[in-house]
Amino acid sequence: MHTSLPPADLPSTEFQARVKRLQACQRRLRLDAVLLVSDINRYYFTGLETSNGVLLTEPADEPAFYTDFRYLTMAKHQAPWLPCHTLWRPTEEPSVLAGMGNSGWHRVGFEGHMGASRFLRWKEAMPEAEWIDIGGAVAELRAVKSPAEQQAVRAAVAANDRLFATLLQHVKPGLSEWEIRSLVRREADRLGQGEAFDTIACAGRNGAECHHHPDGTLLRQGQPLLVDLGLKLNHYCADMTRCIFFGAPTPLYRELYAIVLEANRKAIRAIRPGVPCCDIDAVARGHIEKAGYGTFFGHGLGHGLGLEVHESPSFSSACKSEMKPGMVLTVEPGIYVPGKLGIRIEDVVLVTRNGCEVLSRTPREL
Amino acid sequence: MHTSLPPADLPSTEFQARVKRLQACQRRLRLDAVLLVSDINRYYFTGLETSNGVLLTEPADEPAFYTDFRYLTMAKHQAPWLPCHTLWRPTEEPSVLAGMGNSGWHRVGFEGHMGASRFLRWKEAMPEAEWIDIGGAVAELRAVKSPAEQQAVRAAVAANDRLFATLLQHVKPGLSEWEIRSLVRREADRLGQGEAFDTIACAGRNGAECHHHPDGTLLRQGQPLLVDLGLKLNHYCADMTRCIFFGAPTPLYRELYAIVLEANRKAIRAIRPGVPCCDIDAVARGHIEKAGYGTFFGHGLGHGLGLEVHESPSFSSACKSEMKPGMVLTVEPGIYVPGKLGIRIEDVVLVTRNGCEVLSRTPREL
Repeated sequence: MHTSLPPADLPSTEFQARVKRLQACQRRLRLDAVLLVSDINRYYFTGLETSNGVLLTEPADEPAFYTDFRYLTMAKHQAPWLPCHTLWRPTEEPSVLAGMGNSGWHRVGFEGHMGASRFLRWKEAMPEAEWIDIGGAVAELRAVKSPAEQQAVRAAVAANDRLFATLLQHVKPGLSEWEIRSLVRREADRLGQGEAFDTIACAGRNGAECHHHPDGTLLRQGQPLLVDLGLKLNHYCADMTRCIFFGAPTPLYRELYAIVLEANRKAIRAIRPGVPCCDIDAVARGHIEKAGYGTFFGHGLGHGLGLEVHESPSFSSACKSEMKPGMVLTVEPGIYVPGKLGIRIEDVVLVTRNGCEVLSRTPREL
Repeated sequence: MHTSLPPADLPSTEFQARVKRLQACQRRLRLDAVLLVSDINRYYFTGLETSNGVLLTEPADEPAFYTDFRYLTMAKHQAPWLPCHTLWRPTEEPSVLAGMGNSGWHRVGFEGHMGASRFLRWKEAMPEAEWIDIGGAVAELRAVKSPAEQQAVRAAVAANDRLFATLLQHVKPGLSEWEIRSLVRREADRLGQGEAFDTIACAGRNGAECHHHPDGTLLRQGQPLLVDLGLKLNHYCADMTRCIFFGAPTPLYRELYAIVLEANRKAIRAIRPGVPCCDIDAVARGHIEKAGYGTFFGHGLGHGLGLEVHESPSFSSACKSEMKPGMVLTVEPGIYVPGKLGIRIEDVVLVTRNGCEVLSRTPREL
């Protein structure tokens, strides 16, 4: 069978180092406890894939992982370095937490995106505690990729380049967007462990809807195809958009393509540590605005990429974070003319000490 | 190409009827406004698949949908009955909401599972409002499936039966769990629109971990295989678990299989409207306990199924909800003996006026 291998995990030292960084951050924020409940943050710090669980860290103690019956055997086997316990029933959670916390937790870190009702019950159970949203701080930790993570993203992006090359061999006019998407999914399963997100495939003027859902629309000769695709490999995501024209591009298409490509290039040239992310968005946006298409570029320039397809920081006008070496982001300017066409050119870059390295190798020329 | 069709949507009258039911519920709860932000609830009431947006309903007015640039064209095209507006930037959300609400919203419904920080900002922006968690009420609306939804689940479960039949033709000792999972994924793409959840495939004693992640473990002759699989068809989920023995089952395996199968049968016979869900869990659990394996059945008996793989209500000891005709649930007793083996037999049932109909048709006999 043509199939990939199961996802490989990073060594457990990687996860232990991450917990240590979390605890250092926790000491800086003077947090007596941090409680992580989201699947993705629990995975980031433990390497355990479970749909339920709480990771508790205190500044100096060993961390502890609480999960339910279904995952306990796996957790103990996969993360022997991490003390694992059966999780209380959800209804008992507030009182169990209160039992642990009410004697010594003054400041407690929680994830701001956790469920509101669950959080309100925690708060009620520990009325004296001061609750600090550490979602942003954890996102900052995750934003800078370790050497092992950089290697993982590099491999995912390289596999995604191969996926795109295979796609080019099979895509031809007469296929529907849905069939093109199915091709991508099949190859994402073969070259990685499936899609990192639902593939976007837009034939002809459907490209003007920048998050169009692939449907039965047929790709025809004389039309462009926009494909936004990314596989997952060993837990890390790739992400790339390319536009291909089947036949001779129209003058408008050529014009817009050149503008978007130059916006992508200018942005990439401007990336280096210390520069605020919003400045990079402004470089690309400025170029598109000067060309007269500013109102047709309605989304941010890019986003962080890692375990998730959208991570911190982002190349948007609202993101003042300064870039640091080890950050991985997408650069994806676009122009969408309603009812006519849409063009987006998206690459993945790794911020280096002096600038950035473009990880995506698929050619971008028209 | 062997590929399915894109997901078909139900007619827009279905979504309009759902909004009307939401507004009726809203009047009963005396809510001046309901704000829905989760992807799945927005889809349930509007038929729009977007990763961002707010559905606002007031008791008597037309509903309104707020989303961003990326989805506006699609939303207007796909749901012409629904007034759609560009969503404010996230940072402006609290003040925009306050602008709408502070004059006349006294009681406002929100989803308890929405992000805690976002909710706290809403609360702060509308300090006078009383906030009511309507997550449970919406889950109750969704629990009873309309005739069109019943048809959709029926079709998904039938396609899943076909998927399993195809799988049986291809699975043989020598394949790894990962390869078996890949087969399921390929067929789920062909017969539906992909997996509803990550397929579980456990060879040999891996079955004892009830949510084992498929890995490189090879299935060998003389071993059982546990497969928990469900495709998605036209937005609705299927879910089924079967255990197959390759060779002659051991006496222990035969014994436990018979207990689990009888627990499944007894539970199904007990299902009918008006009975609390917890009673059905108790029937299966009682049977397994009496047989001496109660401590090896650590999870609930089943869960609601629909747009999501896990919906309300659930066959668990904590769920006091009474069954109603039109509810769709799984029945999945199991016995897991650590280090030895695991057996689970899972079917989907539709609660009818007098009892239930078992939608899963794949044979369950050993």
